[in-house]
Amino acid sequence: MPDSITLYTAKICPYAHRVELALAEAKADFKRFDVDLKNKPEWYAPKVNPASKVPAIAYGGPDVPPDQPSPESIKIAESLVLIEFVADLFPSANLLPTDPVLRAKARFFYDAVGNKFNSAYFNYVLKPGGSQEALFKATEDLQALLPPTGFAVGEWSIADAAWTPFIARLFVALENDLGGYTVGEGPKSLQVLLNDTRFARFQQYWKDVSARTSFTSTFDKQLIKEGLSKRFADIQRA
Amino acid sequence: MPDSITLYTAKICPYAHRVELALAEAKADFKRFDVDLKNKPEWYAPKVNPASKVPAIAYGGPDVPPDQPSPESIKIAESLVLIEFVADLFPSANLLPTDPVLRAKARFFYDAVGNKFNSAYFNYVLKPGGSQEALFKATEDLQALLPPTGFAVGEWSIADAAWTPFIARLFVALENDLGGYTVGEGPKSLQVLLNDTRFARFQQYWKDVSARTSFTSTFDKQLIKEGLSKRFADIQRA
Ligand SMILES: N[C@@H](CCC(=O)N[C@@H](CS)C(=O)NCC(=O)O)C(=O)O
Ligand SMILES: N[C@@H](CCC(=O)N[C@@H](CS)C(=O)NCC(=O)O)C(=O)O
Repeated sequence: MPDSITLYTAKICPYAHRVELALAEAKADFKRFDVDLKNKPEWYAPKVNPASKVPAIAYGGPDVPPDQPSPESIKIAESLVLIEFVADLFPSANLLPTDPVLRAKARFFYDAVGNKFNSAYFNYVLKPGGSQEALFKATEDLQALLPPTGFAVGEWSIADAAWTPFIARLFVALENDLGGYTVGEGPKSLQVLLNDTRFARFQQYWKDVSARTSFTSTFDKQLIKEGLSKRFADIQRA
Repeated sequence: MPDSITLYTAKICPYAHRVELALAEAKADFKRFDVDLKNKPEWYAPKVNPASKVPAIAYGGPDVPPDQPSPESIKIAESLVLIEFVADLFPSANLLPTDPVLRAKARFFYDAVGNKFNSAYFNYVLKPGGSQEALFKATEDLQALLPPTGFAVGEWSIADAAWTPFIARLFVALENDLGGYTVGEGPKSLQVLLNDTRFARFQQYWKDVSARTSFTSTFDKQLIKEGLSKRFADIQRA
């Protein structure tokens, strides 16, 4: 039995969402503390994560309220480190396969999410003049890594936890035409991603991951929409 | 018993060196193929690594010469994926601890190598006008993650494989005054890193990692010096 887990998180944050997905798939018992990223508690950096980011986990130590973290618990940060940690803590949940080759494929996959998809997403949505084709290309590159059916390495794994939050936020942005692209382009890009045969495998993948309870129970679409709207308004004013 | 391993590598490359260290620590049996990075064989990208980079591993499949890779072997790339793969293939070599918290610390450590140290090294050595203080700060940040004695997480682990190649190349660059800094600054920076009490823990760490057979048997100082000299000459001409 793992020790107690306190997750420091924020619904808006795709990195934190990765860890929420892994914990949900593991059916882990944990406390959560939602960090207001616009107004972080002053104890957060010194007592939980010196990098002052979510997600972070306080592991073990005495039973304390999340806003009074104990120096005796172990603090861990970085979403990819944390989803591996959750997989290690709950081996019977099979969040990573046991086969070394499949484990390597899962890690190669989440590395590609970080190196290819995330930057294409950030560039398209959060910067002016982002490239639709760069986003499509990145989606295709990730799609090409998927097996014919199932998840990134067959069974659901932390590789899927790494990608899902970014797809979900991309779709909310496009649906609501929030992005640095020409007005009206968002919904059109979404239609292509959701209907063009170029992305057929990706479409099936999205159906599969987004239907899981781990996703439906952790994704707050309305809140993401509001967060993206605010962020986008800030960018437009800048 | 793992299947057959063919490592595609290059002595100059710090990423490839990570995998050579892990394989040496695992006392793994493997074939190697040295890729000439200035003149890559035309089969390399299509048959081994579409990203056309070293390191890569061909795993399993029929017994073929490394320059005739079989479509039946599994191809894996990315140094961090590969050192985890080696750890998974050789569990009894303990290249990662079994304790989930120590595993998380090892992964947090190699993530910090990538995010902090490597960029400081590249900026200082391979770009003009690099900042000595940024390099010192990054070294201090990594040093701060080390336990009082031993390696990144106590026993030697893949976290050490991730850092060692970069320290080794940094030291060769500084010793030979190869870098984008003012002429003569290299050896001075090296003296500080090797002697100033600010870096006492780092100095002990370097003694410990560089004394291991995995390092002495995989590091070719002369070749690195020549490689860095050429690369530096290219930069100066640019
Ligand atoms: N590399 C980190 C990135 C985490 C991150 O950037 N989190 C953001 C929110 S999405 C954050 O906490 N930023 C600090 C802030 O907003 O002040 C990870 O993978 O966990
Ligand atoms: N992210 C890769 C980086 C590997 C890399 O950049 N390798 C370089 C040599 S150090 C390479 O093969 N570059 C391709 C080239 O030189 O054409 C990893 O960690 O393995």
